[in-house]
Order: sequence, then structure tokens, then C-alpha cells
Amino acid sequence: MKVNDIHYLTIRMEGSSVFMVEQNKLPFEFSIFEARTYKDTCMAISTMITRGAGAIGAAGGFAMAQAFMENDPFGFDSDPFGYAQGSHGVGEGPQAEPGVPRAESGVPRAESRGTNPHDPFGSAQGSYLQQAREEIRSTRPTAQNLFYAIDRVYKAGIADGTDAAVAEAQKIAAENAEEGRTIGMYGRELIKDGMKVMTHCNAGWLGFVDYGTAVSVIHLAHEQGKKFFVWADETRPRSQGARLTAWELVNAGIDHAIVPDNAGAWLMEKGDVDMIIVGADRIAANGDTANKIGTFEKAIVAKRFNIPFYVAAPFSTFDMSIPDGSHIPIEQRSEDEVHYQTGPDSKGVMHTIRVSAPGSKAINPAFDVTPAELITGIITDKGIVKPETNAIAALFNRK
Amino acid sequence: MKVNDIHYLTIRMEGSSVFMVEQNKLPFEFSIFEARTYKDTCMAISTMITRGAGAIGAAGGFAMAQAFMENDPFGFDSDPFGYAQGSHGVGEGPQAEPGVPRAESGVPRAESRGTNPHDPFGSAQGSYLQQAREEIRSTRPTAQNLFYAIDRVYKAGIADGTDAAVAEAQKIAAENAEEGRTIGMYGRELIKDGMKVMTHCNAGWLGFVDYGTAVSVIHLAHEQGKKFFVWADETRPRSQGARLTAWELVNAGIDHAIVPDNAGAWLMEKGDVDMIIVGADRIAANGDTANKIGTFEKAIVAKRFNIPFYVAAPFSTFDMSIPDGSHIPIEQRSEDEVHYQTGPDSKGVMHTIRVSAPGSKAINPAFDVTPAELITGIITDKGIVKPETNAIAALFNRK
Repeated sequence: MKVNDIHYLTIRMEGSSVFMVEQNKLPFEFSIFEARTYKDTCMAISTMITRGAGAIGAAGGFAMAQAFMENDPFGFDSDPFGYAQGSHGVGEGPQAEPGVPRAESGVPRAESRGTNPHDPFGSAQGSYLQQAREEIRSTRPTAQNLFYAIDRVYKAGIADGTDAAVAEAQKIAAENAEEGRTIGMYGRELIKDGMKVMTHCNAGWLGFVDYGTAVSVIHLAHEQGKKFFVWADETRPRSQGARLTAWELVNAGIDHAIVPDNAGAWLMEKGDVDMIIVGADRIAANGDTANKIGTFEKAIVAKRFNIPFYVAAPFSTFDMSIPDGSHIPIEQRSEDEVHYQTGPDSKGVMHTIRVSAPGSKAINPAFDVTPAELITGIITDKGIVKPETNAIAALFNRK
Repeated sequence: MKVNDIHYLTIRMEGSSVFMVEQNKLPFEFSIFEARTYKDTCMAISTMITRGAGAIGAAGGFAMAQAFMENDPFGFDSDPFGYAQGSHGVGEGPQAEPGVPRAESGVPRAESRGTNPHDPFGSAQGSYLQQAREEIRSTRPTAQNLFYAIDRVYKAGIADGTDAAVAEAQKIAAENAEEGRTIGMYGRELIKDGMKVMTHCNAGWLGFVDYGTAVSVIHLAHEQGKKFFVWADETRPRSQGARLTAWELVNAGIDHAIVPDNAGAWLMEKGDVDMIIVGADRIAANGDTANKIGTFEKAIVAKRFNIPFYVAAPFSTFDMSIPDGSHIPIEQRSEDEVHYQTGPDSKGVMHTIRVSAPGSKAINPAFDVTPAELITGIITDKGIVKPETNAIAALFNRK
């Protein structure tokens, strides 16, 4: 997506550093964060400097590749295939400016480094890589794309070495950008002139390497010249809708308004919502979908008013190893995300303020699971599929 | 309710001033606001210095009485019946401290004042009072208690003069406190040991002259020694649950946690909600209930999981002139309530910060209407009634 007329990717790896749009600073400041080590990247995932299913997947792949680089006793050609020049379409972002902040927390090379140069992936290093893999996996326990990317990069690296791990991580990021575009192309046919489309959280450009999923549909329908209106759910407690989706829509010039999460049923009853599109963090074999907390509630309400409810997600979001949503663990995040809010005052000075009663506790589940029966269809990069076990299995067999 | 061991009413009138707990400063600061004129009181209602169905009703009655006092060419005995000494049970709050802030905006006496002392409620003064009545009514267009109180005070004043208007306003406030206690006594029988009870917004002590409605049930069950847990919905955008209900629960020492509005369906599906109790701003003759935005959504979700959903409200909340909820206008409030949040930083310094993307618009409906079919029962000060036209009419005939 273009920001100030420059085409940015939300995340890219160059050399051994991962560069990410600093999403915690949006919508008030657009800046790039540099993670120099896999541990920096883990921190960026768990603190949501980078967030959203696709971006997390790319970040997890890059982090795994960083772990291979950090562990590689033979050193590393930081750009063996010229990815930094954009040959894979994922290096189009601007070069790191001198002012890009670098993570403070460096990580020392693995202690086993060089102990046995004839056994680069022997037990000691293997253990380092396995530990890194577990550590990266644990940053966001619900994100299917994360596990998928880590495993691909891990397998490539174990089989063919560090350069292969790096190449695989770059390939995953490039695929993610392309998937987002393809999802948008399929989904935009659902949007007609005059429609009012609701979305929850931010399954947008910012959540992926490029384009997004639910918001990719919106971006690409807008690029077609269609006239429609977007309702962006605020999406408390982190307010990714009010902050990130709204920022994307302002940036793209798309008509929209922010909706307090509580106002969904009121809007739907009035007939002011023609369609809902949300993203997904993990989809079970039967179509049950884990997505941002509140998605389930919107789906229940949409069902009452017979409003089409679509999930948009790349193929990699399906987890065929679980038959249904009951097998998806729900990440519990810090209650401080409910108690505190951060933003600028009228002079642009940032503050973190308490917004709840001192002394109260809060719960903060990050996701919920929407059962397949409430979902009209799943918009994937392989087409739109019914949320049914057989239809989803058929999609997999087509692969 | 006791705060720091002193029994406070949330709103009371003494002389020609109305004293209110400053609810916009809670939960961070407990202070009293003095409104010296009816226009001050209108401002306090519309800016939510005082809020909640019962407190708004009392405030509207007091404002109407203030208008009579301001308009009265014969002057006014500010305390003819000794209410300030607490003879009606509504003057128990502490006397105004010297430090109590007074509203800046004074209002001049009616221009007609004294033009015809032999016709105190003739056309000129009548027009002043009618205009005041309209102005007070327009502060919160959804609040049935407001209209009810204004009309009672207006009729008493027109019939029997200013002192009668003042006495009627004090009577309404005293009734409200007693209604809250009675609702709590009926409702608390529904709460059993070990239950998890959810509430939305703040239908508590702070919303009424004393006790509250939905939270009165909780307060009085707690006073019985019952052990149960309360889920307080955050209730964006004004977060009355996270700020006010949670503050009341902390103050009363009741186990609770704040729930992001989006997490309702997740909690209910887990089986962690045994009952939901909410307040009401206006109830139609068939039981359709207008209450804080988001109530409708919770009721739809509760229905899916067969969770009992109770409304608690005084009898005066019923509007028998409207057959169903479609006749209830929904107040649209400023979008700034969605875009900005106010609270203290870690040093206790208050800030108002932007929490959404600059350049985005937002919608902010204050209420929604929950259809009677989703409501298990209505807890009133005359007992618990089924939300059905005949049952409600029977309650009225019993009056």
C-alpha cells in the first residue's frame, strides 16, 4: 500500500534484520521498527509492533530464518538471491533510513557456535534452533499462520541450510502479499454499489505483508471505482478497528465511520449493514473460525438479521489437524490492555491513561471462535468456499 | 451508599441548589457539583455530570422546581418543609462543603419576573416555565424518568405554586431512593451462592438517588452475605461499567472483573455467566426496553445460550403511551465520546487523548431497544413481571 506516495510492505527482511511498520504507534505516527535478532522479532510479535495473521506469519518465518543465521557457524551471505533488490516482490519497501530505531535487546550468538564446524546442525545447534522455534511459536499461541511459517522455514533450513531457510522465509512473505491480492480479487465481486460493509478488527494491509484479507476486499473494490460505505468496528480493547482499519481507510480515501462495538445490533436491526467481512487467525477443518474477540458476537447478531457474514483468509490459515474450533486455545492477554489506553493529547503529546476503576481486575481474551454455522462463506486465495468439512477438504485436494 | 464511611445520595436539592456526585470525575475522584439554576442542572444532565435513569429523573424534577423558584415573583421559602434537614430521607447527604464547585453559568431571572405580580402563572411566566420544561426535556431525549419527573413537578407547581413544585421534586427523589431499595429486595432472591452475574453499563447507586436498580440487586444480595461474582461490561464508549459499576463494586467490596464488551459471547459460551441484569431508560407497554447501547446485543447472545436476562427498573420507567419499542427515539451523542478518552496518567495527572484514527468519523447511538421476547423478566419496585402487555397492564392496574 502507498503511504505518502511510497509503496510500503508492512514487513520485510533485509540482511539479518526484519523491518516492520510500528503498528503500536499508528494511527498517530507512521514509522519503521528494525528487529536485528530472532528474539527482537519475537518481542515485536508479542508486543504487537507487528500484528495481524499474515504479518505474524511472515514475522515468524523471518524470526526462524534469523535464528538459523544467528546459529550458522559458517556465516551467512545476507542476500544470496538478491531479495533486497525486490526480485521477489517483497523488497519494494524503502531502504532502512538511518533514523530507523533498532531493538535494544540484542541476543548473543548461540553458545554452541563453532564448537563443531563439521556438524552445523548437530545436537547442540539443533537444540538452539528447536528452542528458538518453540520461543517463536509461543509469542502468539492462536496464530495458525505463525506455526505454518515457522515449520516451513525450519524444515527448509534443516534440510538445506541457512540460505534455504532465508529463501523460504522470503518466499512465505511474497506468497502472503500475493494471497492478499488474490483474496481481494475474489471477494470484491461480493461488494455492490451502495452497500454498507462492516468489518471487525484489522484484517487489512497492516495485518499482512500487503493488501490484507477482509480489508483487501474493500481496498480492491474501491480501486474498481465502486461506491460503498464501510463500518469499522472499534474492536476494544486494543481498538485495531478504530486505530488501524480506520487509518487505512482514511489513507485510501474510502468512506467510513467507526462503530462502537456495542452498536452492532442497533446498526444491523436498522438495515444499515449489508455484509460483514472479517479476517481469521485459525480455521478448523469444519470451518469454525478463530478471530479477534467480538467476532463471535457479531456473527450471532448477523444471523438474527440474516446478514451475510464472510471470513476472508489465506489458505494457510486452515488447520486441517483440528476437526473443529473446540481445539483452538484462546490466548489470554494482559488485563492492562483493558485498563489503559495510549494516545496523543490535543498538542500531540502521547500519554497512557487509566480508563477503568482503580482496584478492579479485567479479563482480556484475545480471540473467540465463531462456529461454521454462522459463517456464509470463506474467501480464500483459492476461491470462496462454504464452511463445511467436505468443501474445505475439496479445496485442500485441489492444491 | 457509604463512601469513606459517610452516607451519600447521588443527587439532592437544598435551597435552590442541586448537589450532585460529579460522575464524570469518577472513578478517579469523588466530588460534589453544585447547580444553582435550572440551566446549570440542564447542563449537568446533558454533559452527564449526573447520569443514569433515576438520577436523571430526580435531576429533571429538581431542575423544573428550580425554574419555578427562578420564575416566582413572590420569592421562595427555600426550605418550607425542612427537607434540608433530611425529614424526607433525601437530605442525608453531607452539607455542601465550602470547596464544592459551583456552576459558572448563572441564569438571569425570567425577564417577566414581577411584571404582573397578580398573575404569577399567567402567560408570560407560563411561557417561561413551558420553555424551561422543553429545555429540561431536551437534555436527554430517551429518558422516560426525566419526562415523568418534569411533568409531575410542572403540574404540582402550576396547580399549587412554587412550594408545591419543590415539595413534589423532593418527593420524587425520595421515592426513587425507596424504589431502588425495593427493586433490590425483590431481585436479590434471584441471586444464589456461587453464581456469576453479568451487568451492562451502570444501573447502580450512581444512576439513582440511592441503591440503583440492576446493581441494587447486587448490593443487597451482597449485604445478605451471598457469595457470587460480578462481570461488569466495560460499556464503551463512555465505559460506565469499567468506570462507575466497577468503582461501586470496589467500594462495596464485591468480587468482580471488567469484561471488554466484545468478550460477552466468549464468556457466555464457556458457561461463565449464570444471569444478566441490566437497567432500563424506558420500557414500552409490551416490555420492549430501551437501555444503554449494547444491551440488545447482549440479550441476543444470552438468548442463544439460554441465559436468563433480567431488566431492573422502577415502575416510572414504563411508558404505557407507546405500544412497543419502535416508538422510542434513540439519542445520538457526540462522536467525540468515541474518539477521545479521559483519565489519569501514572502520576495522577488527567489527560484527554485521541484513541482513534485522526480524520475518521464515528457514530454514537446512546441506546438500543431490546425486544421483550429476549427478556426473562422485569424486576420492578412492585415485583417481578413478565415482559408481556397483559402482565404489565395488570401491574399498572394494581397501582
